[in-house]
Amino acid sequence: MAHDAPVSPLAPKKTPAMPAIAGVTFATAEAGIRYKGRTDVLLVLLAEGTTVGGVFTTSRCPSAAVDWCRQQLPGGRARALVVNSGNANAFTGRKGQEAVDLTGRIAAKAAGCKPSEIFIASTGVIGEPLDARKFEGVLADCAKRAATGPWIEAARAIMTTDTFPKVATGTALIDGVTVTIGGIAKGAGMIAPDMATMLSFVFTDAPIAAPVLQALLKTGTDRSFNCVTVDGDTSTSDTLLAFATGQAKCKPITDVKDPRLSAFKRVLNRVLTDLAQQVAKDGEGARKFVEVRVEGAKSAKSARRIAKSIANSPLVKTAVAGEDANWGRIVMAVGKAGEPAERDRLAISFGDIRVAVDGERDPAYSEEATSAYMKRDHIKITVSLGLGRGSATMWTCDLTKAYVEINGDYRS
Amino acid sequence: MAHDAPVSPLAPKKTPAMPAIAGVTFATAEAGIRYKGRTDVLLVLLAEGTTVGGVFTTSRCPSAAVDWCRQQLPGGRARALVVNSGNANAFTGRKGQEAVDLTGRIAAKAAGCKPSEIFIASTGVIGEPLDARKFEGVLADCAKRAATGPWIEAARAIMTTDTFPKVATGTALIDGVTVTIGGIAKGAGMIAPDMATMLSFVFTDAPIAAPVLQALLKTGTDRSFNCVTVDGDTSTSDTLLAFATGQAKCKPITDVKDPRLSAFKRVLNRVLTDLAQQVAKDGEGARKFVEVRVEGAKSAKSARRIAKSIANSPLVKTAVAGEDANWGRIVMAVGKAGEPAERDRLAISFGDIRVAVDGERDPAYSEEATSAYMKRDHIKITVSLGLGRGSATMWTCDLTKAYVEINGDYRS
Repeated sequence: MAHDAPVSPLAPKKTPAMPAIAGVTFATAEAGIRYKGRTDVLLVLLAEGTTVGGVFTTSRCPSAAVDWCRQQLPGGRARALVVNSGNANAFTGRKGQEAVDLTGRIAAKAAGCKPSEIFIASTGVIGEPLDARKFEGVLADCAKRAATGPWIEAARAIMTTDTFPKVATGTALIDGVTVTIGGIAKGAGMIAPDMATMLSFVFTDAPIAAPVLQALLKTGTDRSFNCVTVDGDTSTSDTLLAFATGQAKCKPITDVKDPRLSAFKRVLNRVLTDLAQQVAKDGEGARKFVEVRVEGAKSAKSARRIAKSIANSPLVKTAVAGEDANWGRIVMAVGKAGEPAERDRLAISFGDIRVAVDGERDPAYSEEATSAYMKRDHIKITVSLGLGRGSATMWTCDLTKAYVEINGDYRS
Repeated sequence: MAHDAPVSPLAPKKTPAMPAIAGVTFATAEAGIRYKGRTDVLLVLLAEGTTVGGVFTTSRCPSAAVDWCRQQLPGGRARALVVNSGNANAFTGRKGQEAVDLTGRIAAKAAGCKPSEIFIASTGVIGEPLDARKFEGVLADCAKRAATGPWIEAARAIMTTDTFPKVATGTALIDGVTVTIGGIAKGAGMIAPDMATMLSFVFTDAPIAAPVLQALLKTGTDRSFNCVTVDGDTSTSDTLLAFATGQAKCKPITDVKDPRLSAFKRVLNRVLTDLAQQVAKDGEGARKFVEVRVEGAKSAKSARRIAKSIANSPLVKTAVAGEDANWGRIVMAVGKAGEPAERDRLAISFGDIRVAVDGERDPAYSEEATSAYMKRDHIKITVSLGLGRGSATMWTCDLTKAYVEINGDYRS
């Protein structure tokens, strides 16, 4: 079942022009995994010498595709990526392993490489066996048609309940040579900051050794995808992979401390953050994007836990949906986080409007100004604990009736 | 604003006949705290010699009333209880302390005792100063009218978004003498198993020393209120108090190991469990009562964490609302709990229908039978981990559009 919800009002007004990335070609197809009348498979071919880094769900019940990727990752080399939507191939037991094995063989044949150089990701329903025979012929055909664009089609093929395709791009200089980064992502539900949330794939032509790519990805994830939560539910399939084809004409980077990396790192993090925020903006049923900022905590970890407690609170999220500056519920969420907090030092702001200070309502509080602010579609909540220097930011969305609607009849 | 939602379909079909409890009288009144045209204050008078035990929210931002009760509890003696609905007197700073001080003085005068023998609980909006002067006259009048019933009126006065009043009762023999237990509770939203969830007050005429009462309450809470979650949001005001008037004609119990306690303990736990389940059944917007049972975990603590992860998962709860036996989301919730779990040993049942076994769909799975089961209003989910002997049960409700509706416009 393709989901027919209207496009999120928070969708970017303009999709960036996605450039070609040297060494990366792809095509999409309709394999008929679950959906009818839409693409549901993406094959990306990667030039010889492409390195790979990856971070995956922390779930104790990961999908067969995640198991597969974890197994191939130490090799550090990739020649193709296969992604399908409609079926997560998670909790499918032996059949699930057989499905990734077969997918790997079919894709390796199509790409002319070894199965160990194939990376696989699947998203969709859990617990239904995935019939990988459907990839037979389809992937070979994709390989023949593979081209350097349009990226929006790649982003579209991996959507489930997403209401818009998610792409982001940037360029950086290494040794005076321009290198390009391009990424796609899908999110929507089952999104929580417990790792590389959902599916995202980032490609670059920069020549970056696999261990370096891995290190950059790990750090970058902590400040991007790990700051997003839609519903606190961690998927069995969360996968973020980065591929570097090395086609750009600069000297290879083999050390994460290489100073030539600084611009690249910045741009990579910007692309990851952009994609991560798009995931929050397309949270199931989302009408408002919410940034939760916690400052003055005992530590960064403590700040993060409190920010997560606020961003995951159904009562805070329904209040935002109702355009209600209900800061009492924020106090509640701070209180329940179990982290050091002193009621009488707490200050809370919506945007620039401080609503509470020193453990009680701000004497200057204006209901009218706050109500006007709550009508915006980008809400910033700042909590100052006044205890230390730890800070953290989380991104989420409001909790609307549409979320319940979407998830009450997604499978059936 | 009183909430006008229809009565939960899960409300008990019959309200038990609540007996008088020797040494306990009460009255309710309209103090006009926030609601119009309904009672919002309860005064309970307790005979001289009444002992008290209490457990409170673990929130780092507790209400002024919780602070007050914690301060009085070591005294072990109580002569009156004041409860108001409409205003939680939480996050109200110095004004909040002044409000409980004044409430204590007014109540002490009405009850003819010391302020340190007064217990106070408040529920309702957070962050609004509570004008305790509204109790002036009202509590004195209540004291004059105080009677041994009807308990349903006491339960009604403390409701906020509850759709039905919650009462439970039982009797036990001590030394061949019948002692009576009666309790009331309120719940609805901001309910999570992180302590004595919401407000509940239990009364008995048994002669039980305060430290014994405290110990019984603590153990009892872990198997009753701490097994309930509506939305994972822990209130700033959670309070469970137990009062023992000692008016029953049996020898006082001063040791928690006293064998004469066995029947009393059982009945107390039954009353607490009954009230706790009523809270889940009246979760905001609830249409289905959900029992989550986890077995075969490495430890009881681990089982509890997994059960909590399932019971708090918005995706599991919306699936139940949609009458969808979406066990893939249960796999997800097991996986995200971070506790030992092996995908390939997992089995999941809805009622008596096993839907998944050995890490994949049960070969005997019948969509039809499961769909029929999901239409019931009492859903039991059992997860067997196959790792050890730890087990736990949690009670929750489904997540419906009505929850979002209620909480999107509760304050405004």
